[in-house]
Amino acid sequence: MSTSLSQCLGIAYPIISGGMVWASGWRLAVAVSEAGGLGLLGSGSMTPQVLAHHLEQALGSTSAPVGINVPLMHEHAAENIQVALDHGIKVFFTSAGSPRQHTERLKARGAFVAHVVPSVKLALKVEAAGCDAVVAEGTEAGGHNGFEEITSLVLWPAVASAVRIPVIAAGGIADGRGMAAAMALGASAVQVGTRFALTKESSAHENFKAAALLAEDTAVKLYLRRFMPTRAIVNDYLGRVMAAEASGATTAQLLELLGRGRAKRGIFEGDVVEGELEIGQVAGHIDDIPTAAQVVERMMCGYRETVARLPV
Amino acid sequence: MSTSLSQCLGIAYPIISGGMVWASGWRLAVAVSEAGGLGLLGSGSMTPQVLAHHLEQALGSTSAPVGINVPLMHEHAAENIQVALDHGIKVFFTSAGSPRQHTERLKARGAFVAHVVPSVKLALKVEAAGCDAVVAEGTEAGGHNGFEEITSLVLWPAVASAVRIPVIAAGGIADGRGMAAAMALGASAVQVGTRFALTKESSAHENFKAAALLAEDTAVKLYLRRFMPTRAIVNDYLGRVMAAEASGATTAQLLELLGRGRAKRGIFEGDVVEGELEIGQVAGHIDDIPTAAQVVERMMCGYRETVARLPV
Repeated sequence: MSTSLSQCLGIAYPIISGGMVWASGWRLAVAVSEAGGLGLLGSGSMTPQVLAHHLEQALGSTSAPVGINVPLMHEHAAENIQVALDHGIKVFFTSAGSPRQHTERLKARGAFVAHVVPSVKLALKVEAAGCDAVVAEGTEAGGHNGFEEITSLVLWPAVASAVRIPVIAAGGIADGRGMAAAMALGASAVQVGTRFALTKESSAHENFKAAALLAEDTAVKLYLRRFMPTRAIVNDYLGRVMAAEASGATTAQLLELLGRGRAKRGIFEGDVVEGELEIGQVAGHIDDIPTAAQVVERMMCGYRETVARLPV
Repeated sequence: MSTSLSQCLGIAYPIISGGMVWASGWRLAVAVSEAGGLGLLGSGSMTPQVLAHHLEQALGSTSAPVGINVPLMHEHAAENIQVALDHGIKVFFTSAGSPRQHTERLKARGAFVAHVVPSVKLALKVEAAGCDAVVAEGTEAGGHNGFEEITSLVLWPAVASAVRIPVIAAGGIADGRGMAAAMALGASAVQVGTRFALTKESSAHENFKAAALLAEDTAVKLYLRRFMPTRAIVNDYLGRVMAAEASGATTAQLLELLGRGRAKRGIFEGDVVEGELEIGQVAGHIDDIPTAAQVVERMMCGYRETVARLPV
């Protein structure tokens, strides 16, 4: 199955694994790319040295294209982009910042650039900045989120109608049904986070994966809505922060409650009580830890079955 | 186009207009049913006398099936159900209460009963109560909403996997692309609110319709999240309530700010400054006021085009 976007990226299937902090290391990216999708490294939790290691491992393990996600607010964003360029990476997914910041420079180096947005307004800015594609991510997505809280179902078709560049749908897709919905709503590819975070190759801690399997859909909440919207599993830590928010805590008080390194503690070190367990709402309906290749295969199978049974 | 559910309901297209307070009077219900869908009366804003009038007008205007939505928390719910039964209504969509409350009695009268839910857990209760179908409504929907805040994209396939009765998808569907997404995600029909609230036959005030056309997607917010989640357009009234919520107001303080009759004031009387303007998030991408028949026709056309262009 191919779309103009999958042809442009040189991949067999229009399935992209999100570049998730602490989960998207080289093993996951390679597994997805080897399975015919596009694997992204999550540089948002990496120093330039760590990223270089992951890039070397990835490029030594597959000749398929591998990309990188760069949250632009990350302290090492500019350095990480340079490290990736130096390693010959040609696919960049930027997020959490202005698409004008690096796109021109990356395009000059012949790279493919996509930027992640939570609204039509920002999608138009991505197009104007000269990006090759826009990732439209609904509020059901895990981790850091837009303030807009627009759901994937509402966001995707609106973005697809508003821009001419290809739309990559993200937020809430975990199987072939979700992929078919995304394609119906105007997407040219899907970016899948949560489902790939819960695979054998994901570098997330086993405790984190177990907690995500156990979590019900109602246990995955968007918190810090007013200053840094983030979706994660409710645990002791999150419960305290949400209670503080409900009683009108100030940003300073919330920052003190947060402390630093919560995502690493939760996702990478496996402290499911006091760490931040970033995951998408769809985790509530995921109940196994397959390989990334199995995810790609199931998704394509499910997609084809879904399209075949649509009533006409 | 037919599904097992549309056959069961005796309608040409699996499109149901939501029974919306102050918007879903007999004109809208009749227009939708005459166009081949299923029109629902919104009894949640009607006294038994007003409902009887709407039923008489509707039944005198079409021989196509017309149904009724009954929010069970409404003070006249039981009486309204009796009035509808007395008028020979055979299609009931209940919501905001237990599906066990009236289903057995309605089924004994030969009626079709569907119940609206925001979660898988409640969908299982609807099936256990003996309902004919379950309406799975995502958090992007307008008006009163579940506490769960599960988006349509995540909710629909989970409900479809969990129950054997047909699933009617609701929340965020305004065109054929959304309908195709719903069918891909396991629905047998769609319930459409916002798109039909913004039609010529909707009994909502012209000021309300104009405000909804102007609203951007980011202007449609879920508020009262902790005691009565409701989605509406941000205006002076809503801004005050949201500011109070953000600063930790108690339920009693919020109730005082709300007062009574805000939805009537906003939707039916057209006070767009001080009324509550209940509408779905998808209103942000709607920009015209067609007839209900045009909505049905566009939706079916768009659905067929969407399915035909899905890559395989």
